[in-house]
Amino acid sequence: MAGTSNERGWVAWLARRHAPPPGGLGIGDDAALLPLAPGLQLAATTDWFLEDLHFRRRERPEDCGYRLATRALSDLAAMGAEPLALLLSAAWPAGLAASWRRRLHAGLEAAARDSGAALAGGDLSRAARIAFDIVGLGRVRAGRALLRSGARPGDSLWVSGWLGYAAWGRRLGARAQPSDREQRRALARWRRPRARWELGRRLAQPGRASACMDVSDGLSLDLHRLCRASQVGAMVFAGRLPAPPPAGRSSRARSAAARRALDFALYGGEDYELLFTAPATARARLRRLASPTLPLTEIGVITRSRGLWLELDGGRERLPERGWDAFDAHGGNRRGGRATP
Amino acid sequence: MAGTSNERGWVAWLARRHAPPPGGLGIGDDAALLPLAPGLQLAATTDWFLEDLHFRRRERPEDCGYRLATRALSDLAAMGAEPLALLLSAAWPAGLAASWRRRLHAGLEAAARDSGAALAGGDLSRAARIAFDIVGLGRVRAGRALLRSGARPGDSLWVSGWLGYAAWGRRLGARAQPSDREQRRALARWRRPRARWELGRRLAQPGRASACMDVSDGLSLDLHRLCRASQVGAMVFAGRLPAPPPAGRSSRARSAAARRALDFALYGGEDYELLFTAPATARARLRRLASPTLPLTEIGVITRSRGLWLELDGGRERLPERGWDAFDAHGGNRRGGRATP
Repeated sequence: MAGTSNERGWVAWLARRHAPPPGGLGIGDDAALLPLAPGLQLAATTDWFLEDLHFRRRERPEDCGYRLATRALSDLAAMGAEPLALLLSAAWPAGLAASWRRRLHAGLEAAARDSGAALAGGDLSRAARIAFDIVGLGRVRAGRALLRSGARPGDSLWVSGWLGYAAWGRRLGARAQPSDREQRRALARWRRPRARWELGRRLAQPGRASACMDVSDGLSLDLHRLCRASQVGAMVFAGRLPAPPPAGRSSRARSAAARRALDFALYGGEDYELLFTAPATARARLRRLASPTLPLTEIGVITRSRGLWLELDGGRERLPERGWDAFDAHGGNRRGGRATP
Repeated sequence: MAGTSNERGWVAWLARRHAPPPGGLGIGDDAALLPLAPGLQLAATTDWFLEDLHFRRRERPEDCGYRLATRALSDLAAMGAEPLALLLSAAWPAGLAASWRRRLHAGLEAAARDSGAALAGGDLSRAARIAFDIVGLGRVRAGRALLRSGARPGDSLWVSGWLGYAAWGRRLGARAQPSDREQRRALARWRRPRARWELGRRLAQPGRASACMDVSDGLSLDLHRLCRASQVGAMVFAGRLPAPPPAGRSSRARSAAARRALDFALYGGEDYELLFTAPATARARLRRLASPTLPLTEIGVITRSRGLWLELDGGRERLPERGWDAFDAHGGNRRGGRATP
């Protein structure tokens, strides 16, 4: 349910017009929340996945299907919800091979099965370019859902897993063969990002995260959204970001690689990690949730003053509100093209 | 959640691969059903609404928005579910006027408010042509939902409201001014079809409907789907269809008009009425549900033998499985073009 930066006004207009459902949560978070029964809320989210904007036909269809499912599952993860079901609206042009569709479904099923969500329905139509809209439905105990609005000054800022690898993998391309372990990781993280729904459910237990969202459009843009919802600011420590390590033979090459890795981590998008905040009292509990396969990294601090800052090389600079934006993507020719300077 | 006739194989393939959610209902009905709490199921449906296929930009945006909401609300009605919330994924080209979007939302809100459903979320993106995917979420008591599969030989076949007016209105066109009461009704039924969710909830009470679906792609095509799901056949009495009355000065003109009205009623689509079956024992109760503003008409009978027949002018003919089909609509140039011979 990502809004888009320069469509913020439209989302705000919608949110003003539509009161949240009684006992629930409306427009503006990763998913809507609806009260369904005493003690129980439904989390519901929907996400576009459009040819030449979110994927290209030359990619492996299995990878597209996996990423398609992850878009919805990651929003459920961000709310701390248990995934229940997916619905898929699909449209395609005449002559799209059935084998492409079957392979896409194999990838979607792999991601869905993993999460326990069943593909329960959808709609079909025809379109000039392939288009998907995926619906994620999940369940969360009333009052337990993780919102963007819960961050408090003094909270630590955390992120799961790794940042920037997906953008790097996307830059390497659909047909790239990895030349080393880090490139292999980058391609895997871009092609098959695994939604962090187990982590989300754990973070939603009392005394853990105070706010949470998923990083789909880049750390910077998504952090601006979280801070706006919580009416706070943040300081991010660049040196702590779990980004690709700089490689290169000369120090100049390593320095350029480090800058590129930082840009991928801050503005790249498609990480599908969880960005969350927590009070200091939760630190020990959070450390116990981390594992070698899913590290949790403290990357910054929430501040009372509303600006967003990046601490870098001993200095500090404003963290610009940019990242992946469908309305700046020029029909997909520059998918994530702003990720490098 | 309409499948499409010549994509039946694809829907069947999906349904075979995806077991229904435990205690719920998966691919193939008007909406999916998910168990959420003891005694309670969620009904969830999703429907495309695409420029030049389901609507045109020269129509009044308010009408498009109303019809967009009705697509989802009508699927909830068909299950006997109480509408709770809508989610809307919207994509549009650069330069689409904000006033168009605001007017569309005014229509969507009118339909949603009427039903008690809140717009609770969605997604935004960019696309070459305007595209919407609407999600409807509703609530139904466990075991009470109306399915396509419940029709039994000997049941009567019923339809709410009127058939064929919407297709006639579509043919009259977006800018038409009605010349009489029937044309006014046709244009209104096409532009602002009201989902029958109150009726659906009443039909879902014990001892009333045995099967139900909404008529979105035309009586004939949708009845074939209902009969296939119930493993039965049907006989439809053409003379009983609540279709537009034939008008004309000569008997030849009236005869042509009658044929056209019958075609609209059988194959036109976008009626958003409820097509349902019920045992003879329910007849008196059903008659009491009818009103002048929403008649309920007994139009046929369910048969053990699997064929679908139309009784017309004292003879009988096979009822062909055709109606509105996105995969035959040639990119929207012939929206409903097959409705007339």
